[in-house]
Amino acid sequence: MSLGEFELIARWFTQPGRRRDVLAGVGDDAALLDVPAGQALVAATDTLVEGRHFLPDAPAESVGHQSLAVNLSDLAAMGAQPAWALLALSVPRADEAWLAAFARGFHALADRFDVELVGGDTVRGPRVVTVQALGFVPRAQALRRRGARPGDGLYVSGSVGDAAAGLELLRGGVAGDAVASLVHRYRYAEPRVTLGMTLRGVATAAIDVSDGLLGDLAKLCDASGVAAVVQLERLPLSEALLGRFGAADAERLALAGGDDYELLFTLPPSDAAAIESRLAQFCRITHIGEIVAGRGVRCCRAGVEVAVEVAGHDHFAE
Amino acid sequence: MSLGEFELIARWFTQPGRRRDVLAGVGDDAALLDVPAGQALVAATDTLVEGRHFLPDAPAESVGHQSLAVNLSDLAAMGAQPAWALLALSVPRADEAWLAAFARGFHALADRFDVELVGGDTVRGPRVVTVQALGFVPRAQALRRRGARPGDGLYVSGSVGDAAAGLELLRGGVAGDAVASLVHRYRYAEPRVTLGMTLRGVATAAIDVSDGLLGDLAKLCDASGVAAVVQLERLPLSEALLGRFGAADAERLALAGGDDYELLFTLPPSDAAAIESRLAQFCRITHIGEIVAGRGVRCCRAGVEVAVEVAGHDHFAE
Repeated sequence: MSLGEFELIARWFTQPGRRRDVLAGVGDDAALLDVPAGQALVAATDTLVEGRHFLPDAPAESVGHQSLAVNLSDLAAMGAQPAWALLALSVPRADEAWLAAFARGFHALADRFDVELVGGDTVRGPRVVTVQALGFVPRAQALRRRGARPGDGLYVSGSVGDAAAGLELLRGGVAGDAVASLVHRYRYAEPRVTLGMTLRGVATAAIDVSDGLLGDLAKLCDASGVAAVVQLERLPLSEALLGRFGAADAERLALAGGDDYELLFTLPPSDAAAIESRLAQFCRITHIGEIVAGRGVRCCRAGVEVAVEVAGHDHFAE
Repeated sequence: MSLGEFELIARWFTQPGRRRDVLAGVGDDAALLDVPAGQALVAATDTLVEGRHFLPDAPAESVGHQSLAVNLSDLAAMGAQPAWALLALSVPRADEAWLAAFARGFHALADRFDVELVGGDTVRGPRVVTVQALGFVPRAQALRRRGARPGDGLYVSGSVGDAAAGLELLRGGVAGDAVASLVHRYRYAEPRVTLGMTLRGVATAAIDVSDGLLGDLAKLCDASGVAAVVQLERLPLSEALLGRFGAADAERLALAGGDDYELLFTLPPSDAAAIESRLAQFCRITHIGEIVAGRGVRCCRAGVEVAVEVAGHDHFAE
């Protein structure tokens, strides 16, 4: 049986209205939404292309999760509370099993953060998924990439490198229990929404680690007009990553690998100790370096500067 | 020379801030936007896939125009004033000429409606363009598909069928001065933004004609719980359409063809004459039928009901 576009939308992508701030959702020409007074709207969009951002044999559920997670991570990096999403889905055919699993992955994450799918477009074409996430943040408290100052401490949440390791294992055809946690981290990375909201008015700058820690740190430094020094021995590396890859490769994956969706942020030195202990109650954070005057990103090991060559994640680089 | 993703974004898609309500635009993790007090946010997204929504040899400038126009048309159908857009662009390579022309078409339309591009994502993949348009409308005045009542008059703006005719000519390889206006109408359809805003608090229901007049009218009727009767001889057909295709094919294209981006709307009978003359000052509108009790859409010619078979535009229909 072949399903028409309108049936598709009705079957998998129309949810009963769950949020009172949705005045009109799926089923009109556009969604009609109520942004709370005093809050700025925060809007992000990210695209996943089959074969490039997810493997052709990726479980559809993980693609559904990822397509929303990357966008919620962008909102988290601004300190925003997510509220609504729109989904533009291009698929080669109305494959019911694939769509049902995709919707399951998407909605499971949406439910956890009380995000309502309020609109979208379903078309036939190559498998390309674009999600737009909308949320809000008190106007004066949004986190930005700019704002880091010399003397600020540099922090990262959770652990880095796991997702890139998971992708490398999948590409190499390695599977099994021993690598399951790394693969899971790649497929089901958790956006740091609560941490982002907690950093409002606290962090001087923030960015999410989507293209690799060093590349994203360079963007934060550029936007802030500062430099950074990373202490390599402080990088938070998981046991699974170290156990499977060893110290040198683990460091490479942590510095250059994308898709972890941790937050990288800066704290002013005066309040750092108090903030660190408050944040540590619900999320691991690690002080990995310092913001200094100048330009660029430098790495040190045991206090000595070392050269680290990593390619930034650039979709069009040769 | 190959351009990196970040250079691409900087070169063609970073505009100097033009709107004061953009607190952060391209260049942070997400856009930060100020919705005016008392207004609801209106959000729409539409995707164009090469080979399906635009021809592989379509001028890139027209693809840029279309990708924004289809979304502004959705906002117009809600009575919204457009404000911001996000662009998710998947292209096989960093083709500078194509991207420059695409950006030119996109920005020319954006400029005309004071829309600022505030974010997006550029990836390598098959040519697929997804735009999200954001705007606002006073909460109580949004146009909806529901709201049409028996006795209301049924109206359409401009002329219908031209865009579908233009596409049919392009597909058949027909070019030249004689068909230029139809082809132009397909490639550069103008969203009815001003009309939509004028219909606020006036029209009882509205939808844009993107999938064909009869198909879109059926959606409006379904949402409103009413039926409609269309008087076929009243359809506004352009001279170019009639001259090239003759009466029968012109009618077929007007009823089933998509991509005109005219507004289809209903007016209460009591105020219709005054509203009609007000609207006629800046936009052709035509009274093409009536809303009646019941379900479904019927067509009449010279007062006699006639059977019209048209396939609704469904991307997954066989």
